[in-house]
Amino acid sequence: MNPDRNSTSGNLSTSVAGDIIRALDADDKGAVRRLVESLHPADTADLLEWVSHRERNRLVDTLREPFDPDILAELGEAVAERVVERLGTVQAAEAVASMATDDAVEVVEALDADVQQAVLGVLPDIRRDRIQEGLAWPEDSAGRLMQRNVVALSDDWDVGRAIDYLREADDLPADFFDLFLVDRGYRPIGAIPLSRVLRTRRTSALTDIVRPDLRTIPAGMDQEEVAFLFRQRDLISAPVVDEDGRLLGVVTVDDVVDVIHEEHEEDILALAGVGAEDNFFEAIMETTRSRFIWLMIHLIAAIAASWVISMFAGTIQELVALAILMPIVATMGGTAGIQALTVAVRAIAVKELTPMNAVRAIRKELLVSGLNGLLFAVLIGGVAWAWFASPALGGVIALAMVINLLTAGLTGSVLPVVLQRAGFDPAVASSALLTSITDVVGFYVFLGLAAALLL
Amino acid sequence: MNPDRNSTSGNLSTSVAGDIIRALDADDKGAVRRLVESLHPADTADLLEWVSHRERNRLVDTLREPFDPDILAELGEAVAERVVERLGTVQAAEAVASMATDDAVEVVEALDADVQQAVLGVLPDIRRDRIQEGLAWPEDSAGRLMQRNVVALSDDWDVGRAIDYLREADDLPADFFDLFLVDRGYRPIGAIPLSRVLRTRRTSALTDIVRPDLRTIPAGMDQEEVAFLFRQRDLISAPVVDEDGRLLGVVTVDDVVDVIHEEHEEDILALAGVGAEDNFFEAIMETTRSRFIWLMIHLIAAIAASWVISMFAGTIQELVALAILMPIVATMGGTAGIQALTVAVRAIAVKELTPMNAVRAIRKELLVSGLNGLLFAVLIGGVAWAWFASPALGGVIALAMVINLLTAGLTGSVLPVVLQRAGFDPAVASSALLTSITDVVGFYVFLGLAAALLL
Repeated sequence: MNPDRNSTSGNLSTSVAGDIIRALDADDKGAVRRLVESLHPADTADLLEWVSHRERNRLVDTLREPFDPDILAELGEAVAERVVERLGTVQAAEAVASMATDDAVEVVEALDADVQQAVLGVLPDIRRDRIQEGLAWPEDSAGRLMQRNVVALSDDWDVGRAIDYLREADDLPADFFDLFLVDRGYRPIGAIPLSRVLRTRRTSALTDIVRPDLRTIPAGMDQEEVAFLFRQRDLISAPVVDEDGRLLGVVTVDDVVDVIHEEHEEDILALAGVGAEDNFFEAIMETTRSRFIWLMIHLIAAIAASWVISMFAGTIQELVALAILMPIVATMGGTAGIQALTVAVRAIAVKELTPMNAVRAIRKELLVSGLNGLLFAVLIGGVAWAWFASPALGGVIALAMVINLLTAGLTGSVLPVVLQRAGFDPAVASSALLTSITDVVGFYVFLGLAAALLL
Repeated sequence: MNPDRNSTSGNLSTSVAGDIIRALDADDKGAVRRLVESLHPADTADLLEWVSHRERNRLVDTLREPFDPDILAELGEAVAERVVERLGTVQAAEAVASMATDDAVEVVEALDADVQQAVLGVLPDIRRDRIQEGLAWPEDSAGRLMQRNVVALSDDWDVGRAIDYLREADDLPADFFDLFLVDRGYRPIGAIPLSRVLRTRRTSALTDIVRPDLRTIPAGMDQEEVAFLFRQRDLISAPVVDEDGRLLGVVTVDDVVDVIHEEHEEDILALAGVGAEDNFFEAIMETTRSRFIWLMIHLIAAIAASWVISMFAGTIQELVALAILMPIVATMGGTAGIQALTVAVRAIAVKELTPMNAVRAIRKELLVSGLNGLLFAVLIGGVAWAWFASPALGGVIALAMVINLLTAGLTGSVLPVVLQRAGFDPAVASSALLTSITDVVGFYVFLGLAAALLL
């Protein structure tokens, strides 16, 4: 045991990675295996994600027989699939067979249907059944996240009997954090953190040290909801139950950490119009296709804005300063709108924005955007006046600025609430909708006011 | 104990919240206290964040004497400060005095300097010293996150002695997940998950069941780095050490869950140009000010774009179709650039994008944006040709589209890497910089090509 191993760097160092690549290039399999052995499986997984397709295949070939299941469990979907394909059905199944159910379900669900069937086909029956039970739950549900192996004790035991049982049992999960008490119907009725068990004398009843506030998780609960619960209640593990309240398995905080991470990632990418699949390691064609759709939406919105401008073609020809200034009003509206929108989307995600305070939130956004609208109206009005020596033009752009920033504040705060009520994910598509509105309103108000007041 | 309490809803239900507000309005303090008592402290904290300023003060007044420290620990910074002010120094200090060090540091660091001094002034000496030691570590460091109370055992103990010690000791933390073995210099040399202790016979040496891969966390480590480690290694708790490797405290996964959440929130808000302080519960003036700066940056960028347009005023006057079409090229560049940028910012944050694969990442973005550039060139070229019956105009906008999308892909992937190398947070300011570049290039290329080729 070397306690200092890796303890200074937060992750796989570039130099170790470089050494491994060089050993691969020199075809020195012994050196590759030795170097990888010194790494944590999560770091080896990172390495497999960083390297090129060709290097990955060589690395997999060097590390097979047997391939460490912990590495497979730590890989992202896109790369996991490629590694399984390279490993081949039999060796992949061997790795999957020795994983905890939750990890195994995660790896298997990432595979294409035919590869999935092939891998499941060579698994021992009992493992296959467990994994298929996991896959039967909806994607992103607690049922998919849970580990089936769980420590459930009868509620009439005492601490001594529990400890004796734990010392004898040989089918316990590798790690666990709470003991669950179950009634005769195998329904969980309490959780006991292990630290309480260790601090209590053997003769005390388990029911004396049970935490008073058990939270059970229905297997169908969405993982985002599960993550919210863990964060809100500082949970380390929680029992998953079926419709009759019977204990099915346990969700642990390490999986929840991954879920929180994934869900945030989805939000941040969705706001930028990138599909959640637009993983760094996705292939070029898939990335191009997934971004195309979003760009198409923006193209249609941009053409709509152009059509608005075309209604004022005559006005622009008479006063070309309008063409010069018009993008400013639209840009500022889009920027202010995205600010309000992002705050609202985030607040909805963390349940800070609720039906209870939506009106207050919208009022606040209107005030903030109104105040900034006034400030920027003065600024841009002054610039336009000075630039084109026209106080009237300054007045028109100032007025357009106030109106468009108010539109931005209102749209940015209302749109996510409306989308959420209508059952959509407010992060998806709302930014495209928002900038369409601020562009169209920005051009229309500025050019329309100019046509009415200046000519 | 009622195990079903709250177990169907993921969070504070609107109906309970409504009942509490109504009881407050009716000045029925007994009912308010009864309703709040049925809530988890985290839910009460949510309620305090949702309600208006006046309702919050009344709620605090009803719940004081004594105010539940767990509620205080769960509040966000902005609201925690207001609640402490309302509670008054003495009662706030009472609550802080009974918190774990990490929670106490978190509450105290949120306070204004004078309130902070007042609260610290009335704390018992030993508590004050502990909190001030925590505050001495840099903001967002492991030292701020850690709980000082930690279970450290000598490495020559056996399991039986450890269990006996845990049963006797009365200064243990409320909850703990690992035992840490320390050498004679109080340096941690290993961690033992509690489940292993419970599964092992009394006569086994602790060193026989220690996990082989201890990760120690230097107290100065940034919390983002700490979170990465926990996620990468599926840690539940980890020992924090000083410069000489001596054990100072422990970071637990529940705090890390909050950190992951905070850091993601900062990224998502920074990309939209909203300061991390722009919390949903911030006051209006602060929000207006924090957003003003970002809008100012965008105003300057927009004026730069207008200046580019003004160079082609004559061209636009001759061919007003250019004014109508020009926002399309700029908009599409900005959209494609934000896609590439967000993917890169996220990949840097999760350490998927490293110096090792930056060149490959940039090449991929150029290919993706080049492909989409060609597709949208054909689309918009066709639209422009049909709209203005001018194949030449279609050709010009098609060419401008390809050039601007390539610019977007290049800038979106290179900019975050460059900002990161230069020591900046790539999430901050990069989207404003990006859209400035795509706007300026979009207008310049489209109008410049039109001036050169069409007139």
